Amino acid sequence: MFNLGSGEVGLSEVKTPIILVNFKTYAEATGENAIKMAEMAERASIETGVCIGVAPQMVDIAPIAKSVSIPVFAQHMDPIKYGSFTGHVLPESVKYAGAAGTLINHSERRLRLADIDAAVTRAREIGLISVVCTNNASVSASAAALEPDMIAVEPPELIGTGIPVSKAKPEVVTETVEAVRRINPKITVLCGAGITGGEDVAAAIRLGAEGVLVASGIVKAKSPYKVMIEFAEAILKVKR
Amino acid sequence: MFNLGSGEVGLSEVKTPIILVNFKTYAEATGENAIKMAEMAERASIETGVCIGVAPQMVDIAPIAKSVSIPVFAQHMDPIKYGSFTGHVLPESVKYAGAAGTLINHSERRLRLADIDAAVTRAREIGLISVVCTNNASVSASAAALEPDMIAVEPPELIGTGIPVSKAKPEVVTETVEAVRRINPKITVLCGAGITGGEDVAAAIRLGAEGVLVASGIVKAKSPYKVMIEFAEAILKVKR
Amino acid sequence: MFNLGSGEVGLSEVKTPIILVNFKTYAEATGENAIKMAEMAERASIETGVCIGVAPQMVDIAPIAKSVSIPVFAQHMDPIKYGSFTGHVLPESVKYAGAAGTLINHSERRLRLADIDAAVTRAREIGLISVVCTNNASVSASAAALEPDMIAVEPPELIGTGIPVSKAKPEVVTETVEAVRRINPKITVLCGAGITGGEDVAAAIRLGAEGVLVASGIVKAKSPYKVMIEFAEAILKVKR
Amino acid sequence: MFNLGSGEVGLSEVKTPIILVNFKTYAEATGENAIKMAEMAERASIETGVCIGVAPQMVDIAPIAKSVSIPVFAQHMDPIKYGSFTGHVLPESVKYAGAAGTLINHSERRLRLADIDAAVTRAREIGLISVVCTNNASVSASAAALEPDMIAVEPPELIGTGIPVSKAKPEVVTETVEAVRRINPKITVLCGAGITGGEDVAAAIRLGAEGVLVASGIVKAKSPYKVMIEFAEAILKVKR
Repeated sequence: MFNLGSGEVGLSEVKTPIILVNFKTYAEATGENAIKMAEMAERASIETGVCIGVAPQMVDIAPIAKSVSIPVFAQHMDPIKYGSFTGHVLPESVKYAGAAGTLINHSERRLRLADIDAAVTRAREIGLISVVCTNNASVSASAAALEPDMIAVEPPELIGTGIPVSKAKPEVVTETVEAVRRINPKITVLCGAGITGGEDVAAAIRLGAEGVLVASGIVKAKSPYKVMIEFAEAILKVKR
Repeated sequence: MFNLGSGEVGLSEVKTPIILVNFKTYAEATGENAIKMAEMAERASIETGVCIGVAPQMVDIAPIAKSVSIPVFAQHMDPIKYGSFTGHVLPESVKYAGAAGTLINHSERRLRLADIDAAVTRAREIGLISVVCTNNASVSASAAALEPDMIAVEPPELIGTGIPVSKAKPEVVTETVEAVRRINPKITVLCGAGITGGEDVAAAIRLGAEGVLVASGIVKAKSPYKVMIEFAEAILKVKR
Repeated sequence: MFNLGSGEVGLSEVKTPIILVNFKTYAEATGENAIKMAEMAERASIETGVCIGVAPQMVDIAPIAKSVSIPVFAQHMDPIKYGSFTGHVLPESVKYAGAAGTLINHSERRLRLADIDAAVTRAREIGLISVVCTNNASVSASAAALEPDMIAVEPPELIGTGIPVSKAKPEVVTETVEAVRRINPKITVLCGAGITGGEDVAAAIRLGAEGVLVASGIVKAKSPYKVMIEFAEAILKVKR
Repeated sequence: MFNLGSGEVGLSEVKTPIILVNFKTYAEATGENAIKMAEMAERASIETGVCIGVAPQMVDIAPIAKSVSIPVFAQHMDPIKYGSFTGHVLPESVKYAGAAGTLINHSERRLRLADIDAAVTRAREIGLISVVCTNNASVSASAAALEPDMIAVEPPELIGTGIPVSKAKPEVVTETVEAVRRINPKITVLCGAGITGGEDVAAAIRLGAEGVLVASGIVKAKSPYKVMIEFAEAILKVKR
């Protein structure tokens, strides 16, 4: 377990292993619900000591960053600077709103290669943790060459299915971990897609991932809090 | 002058003629600066009685909507519903953050035709004023068939130049007003691009526009407040 | 039945009613197979007297235009001029290859509104028949304002299903015909999606369409030739 | 100097060092002009023994591949298979038209990372030489992880300027060569942007490039043939 990024100590810092909860545009995690979901994540993080980050929608970043002290991530940002970019997401705006990091290139918001490179660079410049999402081991290797802080591999065909990548396609995780390590061993590898139970998380960690990127498995659960606790405990069991 | 949309009476309602200030991703209108800029707009609106709306970046919508009672617009929204749309702008998120309306298809954030149609429909469904941006009279006619609340025509080659559309290409404004009226006379036509002085605004109104969409002309001005007053007074002179 | 476009008389001219066969990137209509498919379309057109056009892939336009004398359409073109546009489809290149027209904004190749406008203009400039594809009546009205030669409405959810738009959603056809007529009665309306039998075609014509845009219904049929004959005869029965 | 790809021997095989001429959508290299330009390239290749490839527009691939026996490249292809992809470029269609390879991700036709990966895989599957275009050393390293046959680095700000990358930004070339070598030494590195004279080409080769990707420097020259000869001789001088 190590510490990425900021010098601050405490809940707000991004540590691995990490459970990163993507709120997508789910009703259960929009507006007031987004704040409640983030508060549950904070409680689960305090209770277990495992780092839990949340990635809410753009307009919810600021209120959540004010309400909780766990790390908040943007779901996307554009590789732009101050200027004439109506309707785009300025990295600085995300940072000022209180985000600790950002997803880049999620499978629902794919970017051009040159833009991923520029976004990772912009994140580094202004002190945001960059999490580049990828779809397989070869794209993960490619992303690793851009030197982001983290890579989250998610086979898109498994996203939202409840069929966990760590069981259905364990080789995607192991090959990604290996490929990324070969290119830059400092990069943290997460995995995602279809993760709904603690055993899926444990399997992911055993395969070499340093955390999970999860959405519906937590947000759409009957009790998101219980699932977060279950995930965190599964991580602790493997890591002990 | 008429009243669009909500039943509420007061500063927060969208009325025409309108001055709509696009904050883009300008440093002068990001974060704290965005709130100050919105407060200046509110003061200018109170002083002159002219409706002034602001279109800040996504993360700034909520704090601005809480600070001022003039109408706030999103710079963009995606034609999506609750669901799996990581990194996209959910119309409901914009509405809950306090926006009264949204720009759609700004020249710096062009959309596919079917998505403009869907975004206008979504705006109508949830009670957001839709302002579709266009680049010429024929695209304005095309947008009019989708029945948005407003159309803002801006020849992209003049944006940010300081050469006002109302002087350099007055026929774009008159032809747009005519073309839109022929298809749907209820739609409000704004114009933009290159507007920096009161006389540019007055010219736009005389050509049939019911307001202006303006960015650098106000945001990058030495005294944005003075320019807003100048614009509002120019409108009042023509409208009296 | 009338004559669109070129002064030439004969098979090669685009006439309505029209059966427009989209080859997509189907194996059955790529390379040598594309030429055979076009030759079947020519035979069916000669036998029935009904205009049958084909829309093959880009590299197949020139050989097909040399082999047959029915009208050939591009599946897409970019709204560009001579210059630095690597990897784009220059309208002039399509024209010189022998195309009579082009699809624009097919549901599998959607364009931004300003680009549809520019593509229709470019087609007009160089004498290509423009067929703008749309997904519903309101988008069809919007497209009509751009004054293309034809509009082909296809509800995307029915494409490739075998459930014909003319039966499942007849109101999409009638409302499109009405909406387009209101804006510009000179524009020809085609309909597509799910058309597999002669009765589907007959229904479309009865609803006011001047032809059909069809892909798998013909290309994936056991005997494309027989289906083309069936479609043409269905049109003739209604039109007599 | 080595031999990439096919088992055939002769002009048509892709060898390094290579001069790859991008025809873009220039009038001087469209339709009949494209064939003439390709014939000049063939003559220059025969005269000097240096491999010269041409990348014409899609509709010109087949006639050029029939007219000359130098390698022909597509300017772009989509990472698709046979199916429903109207308006897209099927790799098989490019291959059947006679292309030996394809550009992927040119700065005027940037692709999403996952699509570059898929396009390189598809090229490998069907036996097309893949040339991935990049904009700097870090993106080149990223592309190298996808294992294309060649990488062509071109700082976009220099394209078409006549200011050669090999002089203005030699470090882009050397860093790219190094970065690519570290990840996969089998990949050929080309460089481009602003190359207009033999000395620019010689400089590129001295910096470690195995060839150049060039467009206006040849296509817009008064005598493209002479420039091709000049470029080829510059290569031979350095390589001897």
